[in-house]
Amino acid sequence: MREIPGIPYRFKDPGLLALAVSHRSVGRVNNERLEFLGDSILNFVVSARLFTLKEDNNEGELSRLRARVVRGDTLAELAIGLKLGDYIKLGEGELRSGGYKRDSILADTLEAIFGAVYLDGGFKPCEAVILHVCNPFIALLPDADELKDPKTRLQEWLQGHGYPLPEYTLLSEDGPPHKKQFLLQCTGEAAGIEVTGKGGSRRKAEQIAAAAALEFIAKKPKK
Amino acid sequence: MREIPGIPYRFKDPGLLALAVSHRSVGRVNNERLEFLGDSILNFVVSARLFTLKEDNNEGELSRLRARVVRGDTLAELAIGLKLGDYIKLGEGELRSGGYKRDSILADTLEAIFGAVYLDGGFKPCEAVILHVCNPFIALLPDADELKDPKTRLQEWLQGHGYPLPEYTLLSEDGPPHKKQFLLQCTGEAAGIEVTGKGGSRRKAEQIAAAAALEFIAKKPKK
Repeated sequence: MREIPGIPYRFKDPGLLALAVSHRSVGRVNNERLEFLGDSILNFVVSARLFTLKEDNNEGELSRLRARVVRGDTLAELAIGLKLGDYIKLGEGELRSGGYKRDSILADTLEAIFGAVYLDGGFKPCEAVILHVCNPFIALLPDADELKDPKTRLQEWLQGHGYPLPEYTLLSEDGPPHKKQFLLQCTGEAAGIEVTGKGGSRRKAEQIAAAAALEFIAKKPKK
Repeated sequence: MREIPGIPYRFKDPGLLALAVSHRSVGRVNNERLEFLGDSILNFVVSARLFTLKEDNNEGELSRLRARVVRGDTLAELAIGLKLGDYIKLGEGELRSGGYKRDSILADTLEAIFGAVYLDGGFKPCEAVILHVCNPFIALLPDADELKDPKTRLQEWLQGHGYPLPEYTLLSEDGPPHKKQFLLQCTGEAAGIEVTGKGGSRRKAEQIAAAAALEFIAKKPKK
């Protein structure tokens, strides 16, 4: 095999492609080193693309946008689009447990293929392959602003409107130790905000309360 | 300025080099976006180099080796070797507080210069610059094994010699809340190990105890 449909590259060395689709469950000779390499070139190519595309975003925003593209969920989704599951070589155990459908295996294999293309063809062809696969997703990225967590967004909105920072107060802590539930109140008096959030950790509850506050702001009739 | 001595690249666009050495303390137009880009290409070029150089290392070992090269300490050391501090543009406050000597600023500027070389000259020249700067350090990297933390190394030694895993027991917890000291015992009875470790967290104390155990093993007369 020298090609995978949907990946616009023909391997000179079919052994590299075979290695790239070999999950560690098949044995000692597997795609883990290629995945290490592929992960780093993917990261770079996406960084360079976002750098050019998003001229108005600062480095923090670029980092958040990049994280969206290179995270396991996204790569698995892209791998599914390429039907990579049909090509992955797995050991018997993984085959039986449906490993070819597992997100992490799909994502890792896609990275390993990028690494293999780089070794086989060099930087330019690999860059072209990565952009071909990732560009449709990159084109649909939300604004960097929307990628910020709710607490940060709430804080920025309040500051931008001259309000003081919100306060988070713990109202209650319920449940057994391994399954605690925290109930928090988020107050921004001057902005008329008083909402609550519930979650499995203090942090989570704060984020949920902040999201509720943002929703409250969005619904509030503009003066 | 089109060049920095020690960095074998002549900029077509001197503005890019000027931007690369502009710390954020000079104002809104600074090197932070270039640093984002440079960090990612550095990461990739070093990954690819280690991939080729260290054929016997697995992906975990490659990651540890890479971390040694791209971490702030190392980059600052390389930047000092290049006398980068003489070229960095800082705001007045940073100038007065000696910012040009600060490790993080030196490291960030070196990354930004890599990013600028990529934008100005493309991948190949940038790869050459990065390898020129980093190769002397890469050549002196210790074996991947030595980069493992003491707990991991102790565990592997014990397993390799057919011994059971070591046990870590908390002996005491002293001091005020913000300055706790943990005293732990590390026991590997079958291997004759019984040492202690002290540290500011349980984790740290465990690592220190494991290091003591490794020292004990190294000193033990071989049977």
